[in-house]
Amino acid sequence: MRSYTYCIMRLQDIKQARERLKGTVHHTPLEHSETFSRMSGGDVYLKCENLQKTGSFKVRGAFNKIAKLDLDKSAKVYSCSAGNHAQGVAYAAAKRGIEAVIYMPLATPIAKISATEGYGAKVVLHGDVFDDAKARAVNDCAAENGIFIPPFDDEDIIAGQGTVGLEILEDLPNVETVLVPAGGGGLLAGVAYAIKSLNKNVKVYGVQAAGAAAVAASFGGSPQTLDKIFTIADGIAVKRPGDITMKYINEYADGILTVTDDEIASAIIALIERAKEIVEPAGAAGLAAILCDRYKQLRGKKTVCLLSGGNIDVSFVHKIIEKGLVSRGRQIRLSVVLSDKPGSLEGVSGILAKTGANVIAIQYDRVNAELSLNETILHITCEVSGAEHGKRVFEAIRNAGYVLL
Amino acid sequence: MRSYTYCIMRLQDIKQARERLKGTVHHTPLEHSETFSRMSGGDVYLKCENLQKTGSFKVRGAFNKIAKLDLDKSAKVYSCSAGNHAQGVAYAAAKRGIEAVIYMPLATPIAKISATEGYGAKVVLHGDVFDDAKARAVNDCAAENGIFIPPFDDEDIIAGQGTVGLEILEDLPNVETVLVPAGGGGLLAGVAYAIKSLNKNVKVYGVQAAGAAAVAASFGGSPQTLDKIFTIADGIAVKRPGDITMKYINEYADGILTVTDDEIASAIIALIERAKEIVEPAGAAGLAAILCDRYKQLRGKKTVCLLSGGNIDVSFVHKIIEKGLVSRGRQIRLSVVLSDKPGSLEGVSGILAKTGANVIAIQYDRVNAELSLNETILHITCEVSGAEHGKRVFEAIRNAGYVLL
Repeated sequence: MRSYTYCIMRLQDIKQARERLKGTVHHTPLEHSETFSRMSGGDVYLKCENLQKTGSFKVRGAFNKIAKLDLDKSAKVYSCSAGNHAQGVAYAAAKRGIEAVIYMPLATPIAKISATEGYGAKVVLHGDVFDDAKARAVNDCAAENGIFIPPFDDEDIIAGQGTVGLEILEDLPNVETVLVPAGGGGLLAGVAYAIKSLNKNVKVYGVQAAGAAAVAASFGGSPQTLDKIFTIADGIAVKRPGDITMKYINEYADGILTVTDDEIASAIIALIERAKEIVEPAGAAGLAAILCDRYKQLRGKKTVCLLSGGNIDVSFVHKIIEKGLVSRGRQIRLSVVLSDKPGSLEGVSGILAKTGANVIAIQYDRVNAELSLNETILHITCEVSGAEHGKRVFEAIRNAGYVLL
Repeated sequence: MRSYTYCIMRLQDIKQARERLKGTVHHTPLEHSETFSRMSGGDVYLKCENLQKTGSFKVRGAFNKIAKLDLDKSAKVYSCSAGNHAQGVAYAAAKRGIEAVIYMPLATPIAKISATEGYGAKVVLHGDVFDDAKARAVNDCAAENGIFIPPFDDEDIIAGQGTVGLEILEDLPNVETVLVPAGGGGLLAGVAYAIKSLNKNVKVYGVQAAGAAAVAASFGGSPQTLDKIFTIADGIAVKRPGDITMKYINEYADGILTVTDDEIASAIIALIERAKEIVEPAGAAGLAAILCDRYKQLRGKKTVCLLSGGNIDVSFVHKIIEKGLVSRGRQIRLSVVLSDKPGSLEGVSGILAKTGANVIAIQYDRVNAELSLNETILHITCEVSGAEHGKRVFEAIRNAGYVLL
């Protein structure tokens, strides 16, 4: 296993990384969004790393690292990740024509395993949690004299991720603010360094999930380790940022913002509805920051939201939309007390039909301590066109004399 | 109201349309897809009109038509649509600085009304079905001396949609096949004409929903009217194609393919998972055709699937994913007969936990004619990692002696 030193990255390293990436890794589109510009009172651009090879920016760092290695064709690279880094390493190793072995915890969803194997890597499932898998990966790597590819805390990885910053400045030279999702900090370190080296006036902020804000806790000092983390944004759910990444972040980033899981979920739905883009929770954190009301300093500026990746399971998209439909008043749930006799369902359904509510689930509940013997509760889930419509449905049922719980 | 004549469109008309569109309407990206290429054994490209202004190609025809009108600033345009044409006309009229009045049936979802109003048009809700709204639109338009903007059966509209064909040939000169969703036929007519005028060797096929295949029924002859249509692809659910569009389609298209709603739904999910793109059902028809097994002539070619639009309601995305999760074995539903006594739920839940199935809904059913008095049925919905995993869960429950219905 190679050890890495605290050498100082130069802008030249990022420019060289970009040369290496050419032809293998996309220069991803930077899309202007009229809708998000209007919503945030500025000029909002989306840097679409969700459309990157392997579905995330991670392939940039992995490719740069692997391309720079001095090796013969029999060499093997090792890594440990259940997420985007796994696919990045697998793809980069395949392009260099060498073997990759990726360690993942036993409970890893089959979709992530198949995606990684699909790029030609060997996947080893080991241990209940990430740390078990990582320990085994480091161990096997050393035993086999392999080369370990770390997920973020490495100058070559950081230089690779920094190439996103070069593309942003090239496509939008007068950008004022760049919002970068941050977990371990590799992307933020690289982008902040690249951009500040070329233009000190651009503000670069990291954005973290409020439930896993280790970079925020470490900002301005040394890396802190959080006891526990909880967020839907698995791509940036990291307990401790890197030593090297924090050095760059402390020197070049302008601050760290945090967003809640609800704000991230809303941003994902907004991206689906308005930008027709699929973005994973971590990738939507930057947009979530500019759409929420807390960060006044972001308003009215020419801002790039870095959509860092798009690898989100469709079943999770399903859950997020469901939650979004409820929280935006597009689905309502009513519990109506009915007398337990023929015809009472008809009365309620008639009102729902008349008010244009579309019933999608219905359930009788006869077992409830608060009911008298001849009563039953009807739980109804309806689709409505919005919060106003939902209110009208509730009122119509109340006005007809029904008791709503 | 203007009447239109059967004049013959020239390639020059499409080239002029393109000049008119510049600066207002996007030259949309043409993305190569490694995944879909592998799946279909050819070389598949996606023409992303879902990323077009207003979310669909319709703005091209509407803008071309309105830009060509000889009018003073007090003129008004009228149209009738509950879909993408409404937004296209609204946007195009706003850009020309004139008023647009769009008629929609009373039951139109509020999201479509807001989107159209958001582009500055006046929306009039009238009638229970589309034809009522259209009759009123035509009537009011004549009474107010307005200009009616038809959705597809018009040479200027067809020329506008044809600009997609020019972009495809420019970005991929050696394309072999182009797959174009077809409803009224405006897009297919324009794209087929544009492409064949420049390169007769490129095959251009229309793709329709099997439940609304009016262009297929009319192909090679005169426009036929279907009695009834049924499909999830609302954007191409048209009972009768245009007279003018069919003339071009008969002369320039190579054939009409049909795909089922299930194939369209699978294509939408594949686009979300693999291309990170949100596409509406009509827009996914072309990809559905190349991914299904029926059309052997499409295999192994350099093919462009025209993703015609992305305006799909998130609640519909929700339903499609749900259906897709079930049909691909990612969600399973089991009905287990249990003895109606304490502890029986624990037995089943223990097996589910051991086999790694994630319970998302559960329901007791005590009222069933086939049950004896001390039995109950447990309906369980679980998430599993795939069809194989689902089978293992079923087997484990059966092997433990439970009866599955």
